[in-house]
Amino acid sequence: MVFKMTVNATRRTTRTLWLLLLVTLSVCICVCRASSPQEDSAMENIVTEKRAEESHRQDSADLLIFIMLLTLTILTIWLFKHRRFRFLHETGLAMIYGLLVGVVLRYGIHVPRDSSNITLSCPVNASPATLLINVSGKFYEYTLKGEISASELDDVQDNEMLRKVTFDPEVFFNILLPPIIFHAGYSLKRRHFFRNMGSILAYAFLGTVISCFVIGLMMYGCVMLMKQVGQLGGDFFFTDCLFFGAIVSATDPVTVLAIFNELQVDVDLYALLFGESVLNDAVAIVLSSSIVAYQPQGDNTHTFEVMAMLKSFGMFLGVFSGSFALGVATGIVTALVTKFTKLRDFQLLETALFFLMSWSTFLLAEACGFTGVVAVLFCGITQAHYTFNNLSADSQDRTKQLFELLNFLAENFIFSYMGLTLFTFQNHVFNPMFIVGAFLAVFLGRAANIYPLSFLLNLGRRNKITSNFQHMMMFAGLRGAMTFALSIRDTATYARQMMFSTTLLVVFFTVWICGGGTTQMLSCQRIRVGVDSDQDNSVSIAEGSERRSTKQESAWLFRIWYNFDHNYLKPILTHSGPPLTATLPPCCGPLARFLTSPQAYENESQLRDDDSDLILTDGDISLTYGDITVSTDATGAHTSRGPAFTGTGASDDLDRELTYGDHELVMRGTRLVLPMDDSEPTFTDPHHRLRV
Amino acid sequence: MVFKMTVNATRRTTRTLWLLLLVTLSVCICVCRASSPQEDSAMENIVTEKRAEESHRQDSADLLIFIMLLTLTILTIWLFKHRRFRFLHETGLAMIYGLLVGVVLRYGIHVPRDSSNITLSCPVNASPATLLINVSGKFYEYTLKGEISASELDDVQDNEMLRKVTFDPEVFFNILLPPIIFHAGYSLKRRHFFRNMGSILAYAFLGTVISCFVIGLMMYGCVMLMKQVGQLGGDFFFTDCLFFGAIVSATDPVTVLAIFNELQVDVDLYALLFGESVLNDAVAIVLSSSIVAYQPQGDNTHTFEVMAMLKSFGMFLGVFSGSFALGVATGIVTALVTKFTKLRDFQLLETALFFLMSWSTFLLAEACGFTGVVAVLFCGITQAHYTFNNLSADSQDRTKQLFELLNFLAENFIFSYMGLTLFTFQNHVFNPMFIVGAFLAVFLGRAANIYPLSFLLNLGRRNKITSNFQHMMMFAGLRGAMTFALSIRDTATYARQMMFSTTLLVVFFTVWICGGGTTQMLSCQRIRVGVDSDQDNSVSIAEGSERRSTKQESAWLFRIWYNFDHNYLKPILTHSGPPLTATLPPCCGPLARFLTSPQAYENESQLRDDDSDLILTDGDISLTYGDITVSTDATGAHTSRGPAFTGTGASDDLDRELTYGDHELVMRGTRLVLPMDDSEPTFTDPHHRLRV
Repeated sequence: MVFKMTVNATRRTTRTLWLLLLVTLSVCICVCRASSPQEDSAMENIVTEKRAEESHRQDSADLLIFIMLLTLTILTIWLFKHRRFRFLHETGLAMIYGLLVGVVLRYGIHVPRDSSNITLSCPVNASPATLLINVSGKFYEYTLKGEISASELDDVQDNEMLRKVTFDPEVFFNILLPPIIFHAGYSLKRRHFFRNMGSILAYAFLGTVISCFVIGLMMYGCVMLMKQVGQLGGDFFFTDCLFFGAIVSATDPVTVLAIFNELQVDVDLYALLFGESVLNDAVAIVLSSSIVAYQPQGDNTHTFEVMAMLKSFGMFLGVFSGSFALGVATGIVTALVTKFTKLRDFQLLETALFFLMSWSTFLLAEACGFTGVVAVLFCGITQAHYTFNNLSADSQDRTKQLFELLNFLAENFIFSYMGLTLFTFQNHVFNPMFIVGAFLAVFLGRAANIYPLSFLLNLGRRNKITSNFQHMMMFAGLRGAMTFALSIRDTATYARQMMFSTTLLVVFFTVWICGGGTTQMLSCQRIRVGVDSDQDNSVSIAEGSERRSTKQESAWLFRIWYNFDHNYLKPILTHSGPPLTATLPPCCGPLARFLTSPQAYENESQLRDDDSDLILTDGDISLTYGDITVSTDATGAHTSRGPAFTGTGASDDLDRELTYGDHELVMRGTRLVLPMDDSEPTFTDPHHRLRV
Repeated sequence: MVFKMTVNATRRTTRTLWLLLLVTLSVCICVCRASSPQEDSAMENIVTEKRAEESHRQDSADLLIFIMLLTLTILTIWLFKHRRFRFLHETGLAMIYGLLVGVVLRYGIHVPRDSSNITLSCPVNASPATLLINVSGKFYEYTLKGEISASELDDVQDNEMLRKVTFDPEVFFNILLPPIIFHAGYSLKRRHFFRNMGSILAYAFLGTVISCFVIGLMMYGCVMLMKQVGQLGGDFFFTDCLFFGAIVSATDPVTVLAIFNELQVDVDLYALLFGESVLNDAVAIVLSSSIVAYQPQGDNTHTFEVMAMLKSFGMFLGVFSGSFALGVATGIVTALVTKFTKLRDFQLLETALFFLMSWSTFLLAEACGFTGVVAVLFCGITQAHYTFNNLSADSQDRTKQLFELLNFLAENFIFSYMGLTLFTFQNHVFNPMFIVGAFLAVFLGRAANIYPLSFLLNLGRRNKITSNFQHMMMFAGLRGAMTFALSIRDTATYARQMMFSTTLLVVFFTVWICGGGTTQMLSCQRIRVGVDSDQDNSVSIAEGSERRSTKQESAWLFRIWYNFDHNYLKPILTHSGPPLTATLPPCCGPLARFLTSPQAYENESQLRDDDSDLILTDGDISLTYGDITVSTDATGAHTSRGPAFTGTGASDDLDRELTYGDHELVMRGTRLVLPMDDSEPTFTDPHHRLRV
């Protein structure tokens, strides 16, 4: 009785709190909007100071709106999760709240025309980054914000308020995207990623390029048609179409992956989708900047020219490989620092170093003219593969949790901003023909990516990508944060404005409809759910030697890389693997001794070399796994093989890594990060649990 | 043999890595500095775009310098900690590295005069926040950065580079200080803080005001003298002197506290110093803004006027209490939200909510015209006192670690920036007389704060503040981040520039000399080190009833507050304490039932109500503490008292809270945050350890 009443009380209080928050939000919107400049003093200095203060207040209030939006989103998500309501993901919800606030800002509040803006008509020849204005003997410094088209001019003066809640688009690239992308790299599910590496690379590179060109060509056709019927109000070149193709080719199935994760959908499908979405962001961003850089010589800047195209292509390769190299290099430096110092005794220092080094990748890449976001992605993958093993257990937790939080906040911020900007952005160009064409092109572009490539890949794969997987991948081609960030980056021309408006609609549609329909699609395609990744293994292992030969045949590239990684990179960068004195040729003896950590010698002294991804030493394994009784468990299969278990050799290591790779996180007691959390081993041994 | 070789190898590699980092830093400084604008295309658009890109690269490179500096600092700190070298704290080290890089930037690199700045001389009547410039038909938007004095004009054009590494001072108040101050509040050592609350409030409020006026008056005398001997090159009013007094009254003994913590210095001394430094930051910031707001009517703006002073005083009270109320209010809302929702099932959401709510305090306060930093401080204290108890154990860890990391990064960033700015700031005014006067005034101001107040406080205290404690507090009056941030906020006038330069020297001197000499000072003053906070208790408890009466006599204010907190606030805001149905009058029955959580009824059903600060229930306590044999342990003392332990009543609760309060963190298995980490209970019972 008492309890029931309290539950009701809790509900009522929740509702009250919620209302409170909503009221706070609306009050903060209204009050802060209406705050008029205070009494003006005679002294000009004070006026300037007050204006700066007023502007700061305004900025705080604007940011506060977003914080309140995020808070509301979090509370609602909690309610959804609490009630197991899966049709709306947090990102979709953030967009809805953003939309609502956008409507209020746009139509609900009237702000008097701000007369404090002045247009100087003094003819200058250039637009310098810094401008000094001489106002009756006093000098004021002004910084360039950007060009404003003549059509915008009235808007600027008219609706200062809406412009205020509009962030500088570079905020997305320099502040919000890096943690999202780093987190994606840092939490990449390594085992299944590497098993499907070939296919993922094919989808990400070839697929994105195909999608980009298919969409670009279709949009060009659409634009031509629009010109014919007189629907186009400005220039729209083929490069613009290609640019549109590039930006909407970046998929971001965060909603789908969250549901996959919750329902434990097939791990290979998960790996294919996640791997593809992570890498095609990188491809799309470099591709779009290469298209923008396409500049034929001479007067006619929009003709086809081989040299310019080659230059663009060279730029694509250069920027991509440069960013890749920088990202990997910083990751390696971090791994070396954490290996050769005893920083792990001071977790705060260790976490801070990890954070700073990862951030410096981004800055270094940007300072060198490469793409920071791409560098950060590969840095994240490298950190997860090497540095993570050198960190103390505490720092492993801390770094995972830190980037998980940053990712969560940044992602929801972007999505709620997306909702807001549908109403607050002042230069929308909604062209029905273009929008219909774009939806069609996006659909066909995705189809031209998935189906032909899957067909080709299936020729080489034994473990085929079945047609229902293909349909699911087709369906899961959501567009998200990256597409939005790329499209808002430049909205100066008519073409870009039209693209931006259309992109917004594409994102809304795919996140709400495709994201919301994931569970239906899964059951419609009869895709297995509730698959334990270990069960999955045991099925494969039951196929026995066939599976092994599959691996040996199809993943030869991976096998070469794996051997190199296991024999040289891991021993150099981490405390694990065989000592370098054993793997390097004798002539490199001193160097090998120098680089090998004492732990590696201990590893060697054991019967077989221990793989870094398994913290368990051999003794532990036989001890712990010996009494596992669950026969469906992959580990059980291994144990039953008995003598094979004590064999040495890289091929066996590879097999073990493929089988156990994911357990590592659980073994170390690390809390699993959301998108990876599907491989909890089903140990029945209580002693083992204690050890974890 | 092998091991020894590897240790050597490790050392060599560490050195190599270090060199590598240094080289990276210098290369990144040089290369990025030298990057000249690339080939200019004919099209103006592209020129603007390229310039923006160039500027972005430059910004990335500038930020990269700081990241590298922090990385270097971390590695060096590790080495110092590793070797137990205590003369230089991380903040002092960060300053040294900053100084070195500042020297390189100032004298090592020649940047050609940037001709892209243009001074427009068109006479305008105002300096609007946004300016639209018509450049040959195209409109460019410019935003106001600030006023530039005529003398600076040449510098602006001459040394763009040095200006580039100069951050907007508002960055400190809006980005770097909030996490530092919040962390201070969130990690305030509650037990000893509350025990000494009266003294701390006296030092923080009265002391800071005394110090401000003593320094202000002395500096005014000094300035008068300088005018006499013709050493003063500009205006310097009495309000400027008072402002100087306010900003250098904010103490920041982070170095001292770190050493206290490491050496386990007397907890009361620690609490006095930490509490004072946390609160006087808040007082100093509001005080300084009140002094700036002092504006007498009429033409002569620098005369004394009662009305203006009263207005300033009113503003001080208004802003302080407003910020206080806002901070506490947000903390309470967060506590309610975490109490009445089951958000604790989803740690990520919980942590995100906590972070966002704490941040929103800052924004809300700024948007309302209060002081965000002050609001954040009281929000942190409230969160620690109430919300922390509602969080899941995982989120308690996460939030502590998150703010610990943010605090560490922000603090070291500020100190390295301080070092850098000694050379890169272009308007230093070093006046030897003013500097000598300032050092003297700072010394005497601190003395006028500590000694008279301690004398007065000792009249009321039984547990006297001994003279060696007073000397230590005098010595530990370091100036740090807050003083710097306040002084760099406005460097427009000659007086402010002189203050800024002098403040920098004061900070350097106190951090290096006083901070470095802490251990010497401790041994010189014969202050006990290695004091376990529990031992300290047992000594007090051994004094028996005398101590209790001390508490009852001197802390009556605290006692009233404690009873209110225990009976009403804790039950409303957390799951602990007695149910409200028992403490509120019967007429409030429905409300009381509505607000009381089910756990509170469970608490009631036990023999005595359990205090939220103790997670252990009574059963646990008698079970766990029953077999503790260490007689020096406070808990042992309790056990031995037997029957008294089962007594009920708020006064006993208070006693328990005072005694056990700090154990709470350890009990819950929370990793302790650095500045608090001095109260690990010395349990010898292995079973208890397991439970932890």
